[in-house]
Amino acid sequence: MVDSKPVSVPALRRLPRYLQYLRALQQKGQKAISASQMSIDLDVQHTLVRKDLAMTGMEGVPKVGHKIDDLISGIECFLNWNNVTDAFLVGFGNLGSALVGDGGFKKTGINIVAAFDVDPNKVGRRIQGIEVLPMAKLSDLVRRMNVHIGIITTSHTVAQEVADDMVKSGILAIWNFAPVSLKVPESVIVEEADIYASLAVLSRKLNQRVKRI
Amino acid sequence: MVDSKPVSVPALRRLPRYLQYLRALQQKGQKAISASQMSIDLDVQHTLVRKDLAMTGMEGVPKVGHKIDDLISGIECFLNWNNVTDAFLVGFGNLGSALVGDGGFKKTGINIVAAFDVDPNKVGRRIQGIEVLPMAKLSDLVRRMNVHIGIITTSHTVAQEVADDMVKSGILAIWNFAPVSLKVPESVIVEEADIYASLAVLSRKLNQRVKRI
Repeated sequence: MVDSKPVSVPALRRLPRYLQYLRALQQKGQKAISASQMSIDLDVQHTLVRKDLAMTGMEGVPKVGHKIDDLISGIECFLNWNNVTDAFLVGFGNLGSALVGDGGFKKTGINIVAAFDVDPNKVGRRIQGIEVLPMAKLSDLVRRMNVHIGIITTSHTVAQEVADDMVKSGILAIWNFAPVSLKVPESVIVEEADIYASLAVLSRKLNQRVKRI
Repeated sequence: MVDSKPVSVPALRRLPRYLQYLRALQQKGQKAISASQMSIDLDVQHTLVRKDLAMTGMEGVPKVGHKIDDLISGIECFLNWNNVTDAFLVGFGNLGSALVGDGGFKKTGINIVAAFDVDPNKVGRRIQGIEVLPMAKLSDLVRRMNVHIGIITTSHTVAQEVADDMVKSGILAIWNFAPVSLKVPESVIVEEADIYASLAVLSRKLNQRVKRI
């Protein structure tokens, strides 16, 4: 049983990379892995790998390391990615389509069950078994289907309005891809997908590199 | 003149949110802002906002705060987003199209000048003035056009191969959207866009919240 004390956000952010790596080893038929080998392959400090794995409740065996199957299920359980959670997506442009079409989601426990858009040309389309519905149906369906997660892939100009609708309807967590800071009540979780945040890191590093050449 | 000492990655990651927020105020005609007001509006600790702004070389005036125009140009200059840097994108699926079509890029100094794909059905298409070219042309064009940034939006199965091609051709920085840890020489910068990293944070928080209900 995982306890409920707050955990480090950078540690949480590393877990999907561990999972991806461990699943690749599992597919190759490998059975066990040491934290030190993970540290080398993933370029994460050894002590951090050990702490991160300990956080998920996993303990290695000296000289043997960790069983890969156990690590995978341990991390999935820790993130609740072993349970399927239904999600609604609002904004069916290119990014929305990319997320709906992304097979990787199936491994994260997120099941996008419907997409919504204001554009009448998009409403009624079906992609990968998911139907695009008119925005007017959002509130009613959130309540009736008891959906907890809302994904926003609209432009930044309407994102706050969409978030307000989601909150009013009972959405508990919003995954926001629009480049704007959403205002929501404290009881609602917002995670910014923050595409531009990683670009800021890249731009700055490249700038320093080029200056030194 | 910005010095070249290493800066905090979490601080860098906050700067695009500051920019977005400041540009919105600028559009409304507001002239000045205090760090404490930014702290409240963006839900970032006051001391962090002050440190982040100081990192970019900006100093406020007591009782007046910061001139918004100066803050915007200071942050843009710090990230080198005031200069246009050409980039190539490889993998023209939904996510690739979303990035090419994203008007927000124009404000980050990243100019996607060409997209590449292995799919002959995609090659030759033109979207927003950008032509999709065959993968075979990548190396030659990186060299001829002296492009420094490569964006990978392929599936994870081919991402490493694409990264190898980019590195061989002379790309200095890779912005990676494929969910896989790339191996590159130390001289090359890799930033993982890490879509699943933010989902891990969201999933865990939601799990804790639902347990408490």
